Amino acid sequence: MLAARRLPGLAARTSSVAAAAASPAVPHPAIRIAASRATLVTQSPPSPPRQALAFPCVDRLDERQRALEQGPEPMYEKVVQGYEVFETSEPLEMRLGGRLDGFRIAYETWGTLNAARDNVVLLHTGLSASSHARSHAKNPHPGWWESFIGPGLSIDTNKFFVICTNVIGGCYGSTGPSSPDPSDGKPYATRFPILTIFDMVNAQFKLLDSLGIRRLHASVGSSMGGMQSLAAAAMFPDRVGKLVTISAAARSHPYSIAMRFAQRQVLMTDPNWNRGFYYSGVFPHVGMKLARQIATITYRSGPEWERRFGRIRADPSAYPTFCADFLIETYLDHQSEKFCLTYDPNSLLYISKAMDMFDMSQLATRQDAPVDAASSAGGPATWEGTLKALTAGMSTIQMPVLVLGAQSDILFPIWQQKEIADTLKRAGNSKVSYYELDALYGHDTFLVDQVNVGSAVKGHLEIA
Amino acid sequence: MLAARRLPGLAARTSSVAAAAASPAVPHPAIRIAASRATLVTQSPPSPPRQALAFPCVDRLDERQRALEQGPEPMYEKVVQGYEVFETSEPLEMRLGGRLDGFRIAYETWGTLNAARDNVVLLHTGLSASSHARSHAKNPHPGWWESFIGPGLSIDTNKFFVICTNVIGGCYGSTGPSSPDPSDGKPYATRFPILTIFDMVNAQFKLLDSLGIRRLHASVGSSMGGMQSLAAAAMFPDRVGKLVTISAAARSHPYSIAMRFAQRQVLMTDPNWNRGFYYSGVFPHVGMKLARQIATITYRSGPEWERRFGRIRADPSAYPTFCADFLIETYLDHQSEKFCLTYDPNSLLYISKAMDMFDMSQLATRQDAPVDAASSAGGPATWEGTLKALTAGMSTIQMPVLVLGAQSDILFPIWQQKEIADTLKRAGNSKVSYYELDALYGHDTFLVDQVNVGSAVKGHLEIA
Repeated sequence: MLAARRLPGLAARTSSVAAAAASPAVPHPAIRIAASRATLVTQSPPSPPRQALAFPCVDRLDERQRALEQGPEPMYEKVVQGYEVFETSEPLEMRLGGRLDGFRIAYETWGTLNAARDNVVLLHTGLSASSHARSHAKNPHPGWWESFIGPGLSIDTNKFFVICTNVIGGCYGSTGPSSPDPSDGKPYATRFPILTIFDMVNAQFKLLDSLGIRRLHASVGSSMGGMQSLAAAAMFPDRVGKLVTISAAARSHPYSIAMRFAQRQVLMTDPNWNRGFYYSGVFPHVGMKLARQIATITYRSGPEWERRFGRIRADPSAYPTFCADFLIETYLDHQSEKFCLTYDPNSLLYISKAMDMFDMSQLATRQDAPVDAASSAGGPATWEGTLKALTAGMSTIQMPVLVLGAQSDILFPIWQQKEIADTLKRAGNSKVSYYELDALYGHDTFLVDQVNVGSAVKGHLEIA
Repeated sequence: MLAARRLPGLAARTSSVAAAAASPAVPHPAIRIAASRATLVTQSPPSPPRQALAFPCVDRLDERQRALEQGPEPMYEKVVQGYEVFETSEPLEMRLGGRLDGFRIAYETWGTLNAARDNVVLLHTGLSASSHARSHAKNPHPGWWESFIGPGLSIDTNKFFVICTNVIGGCYGSTGPSSPDPSDGKPYATRFPILTIFDMVNAQFKLLDSLGIRRLHASVGSSMGGMQSLAAAAMFPDRVGKLVTISAAARSHPYSIAMRFAQRQVLMTDPNWNRGFYYSGVFPHVGMKLARQIATITYRSGPEWERRFGRIRADPSAYPTFCADFLIETYLDHQSEKFCLTYDPNSLLYISKAMDMFDMSQLATRQDAPVDAASSAGGPATWEGTLKALTAGMSTIQMPVLVLGAQSDILFPIWQQKEIADTLKRAGNSKVSYYELDALYGHDTFLVDQVNVGSAVKGHLEIA
């Protein structure tokens, strides 16, 4: 049907110039079909029987669903291999209530720990990243910051011992909703307690304790990792020598919360999500795919897509479709399909919620600011109160700090990085470097822009 | 369960200061739980049996679904009443192929048509608006531009005869996917042909013909309405006296296409959507609600939400939930629930796709630019080619033009309004007024900002 409908207007258009001249108002010459409609009435062939449009994307999802119903797919458990594991039976009390009766942290390292154990760079990850930041003997696949870590690179493994962990709540080896609950051996699912960025950092410092690492040379992170590095520096100021926070925020703002809310909603309305108990059922493939499509839109920038995809259609001669049609749409479709089976849906829920809840003013004490540090995200009512609480929550961060952001970032807009830098200065920190990057790649700049991000980080880590 | 888990960390926190002092590293004083964990190990009460989180939002959607299955709801057909109807058996040939064998246009008018019939302002609507721009005797409910139209107002009904139509493809009285196909009397559903902005305008000018209106004083529109007003001016240059285009674009850019793609995808994956044939079945309530949530995020701005909602939670003392929790989330939930039963899902698909396909360079002739004016949205490959084609497609627009945009608009970013103005100037138009609004309301500025938008429009319409 589609083939038959390709460019069906062409034949009519060729004979319409004379008709246009005869019409009462002479329109733009390109609108010949419109102008000639009156004369076409009697010429029009009878309409063919109407057929509905085709929806290949819906067909494919149905097919995929049927395949998933046949049995389990290779999924996120197998995505990452070759990491080390720290395991403890010590409980992890969650900041907002509940606890884990013991937990595991998956981690990987690069470089060599020196005798003084003071050359450690702790690298924190974004929402969906594993501990695999860089390839190594046990896992030769490129890591998510492959070109930033290594001999002579941004984080120089000739100098530093780099540790990267999978966060608590994740699905790449650390304890998360897909892990067995010791009480019955079944996955926690949505029995997992609500998680905060502060809980992730606490777990990471338990790992450092176990490795005998008292003090970090630096805490480094981007995106949610930049929230963790901020939190680590404030929570353990005498254990963090330098701080790097890239494309992050001191508190999530409502626009980013809205974007993550939309992702959670599309996931949770997939019936296969089953209130989180899908581990022995069918994977909520459709919900995860849709969630990732929304996420992907927030990770890049309009100007980048304008240059990369413009308005080019996958098949410019095809009759338009509501399924992926423009290149930008096929890109979103492909990216989300590629991702959706490699990450645990419940991890997405818990970790994205932890990002929403993040607010450094929660580290302020009652005396410092009129905010209840114990409340989840109540926060003060006035703007002055907000700034005061934020400053109080970040007042222990007095080490050298590098704050980086990209002007094209929609998810963590540049004013949020400026807010970090300004707040630190207001709190009396005189060693804050703040760079705005005129980069095209939006939030993902930290993954892509080795030239700008890479050298700023190197300079900050290595300067005396 | 939730009540019992409220602020469960409080008890532990009160006794933790001494423990913190004894811990090897003294962290920030607010992180007393973290520091005292080691000492808490033996003190911790045994964990209660784990319970899963509650998901009231999923429960509500299930409930809503069951209610919808009981029978049809009052829906979009009844939302708007009291409009006039233009009906013709003349076919509407669609620009990209296919046709309607006759069509209806719902419209409303305000003010009085003068004897010369030359005081007409044609007002074009955005995606989901009806012809009800302003209240009147037959429909006293406030319209979508209530405060902009009336005696002495922005569009002065003492001077002008204002016409507003529901677009072809809509569901408020004009022919759209929910209308009966004359061939069998059943709704077109997805048998409706793919629609373009140019087709909408063609249908509107058929209405003008029927009213004996040869020439408009002005063509005025915002958002998709600003695409229509641009198209009308280019297609019928000798029938349009002045042009106003607000928060619009000369061509949709990939970021806005991506945002609408995500909306279509969540709708189309609702099984009740049923490839568009839901009119005698169950309404795809969930898909529509999710689509509207995404849309709402694109209509406003981060800074507005920062001021309006900040990080305030609906119930700051409640244990966090993945359902609506922050005020911004309850706002999105409420807005989308309110909207989703009042608009036809297939109209959303067809009209949002028409916006994606919109590109004024398609009005360029072959001689003017290296672009196939007949191709759906192929477009030229180079940047110079893009500009040349766009200029050629807009070359007939030589009447006075007002271009307005809001700097906080994410969906139709300000560079797109600047592109309209620059292109018109490049095409030789010396009567282009271009204003950038420092407004907080993002894309919705045109609905809200009567002070700035209202007076700019009035000045343009009334100046000699």
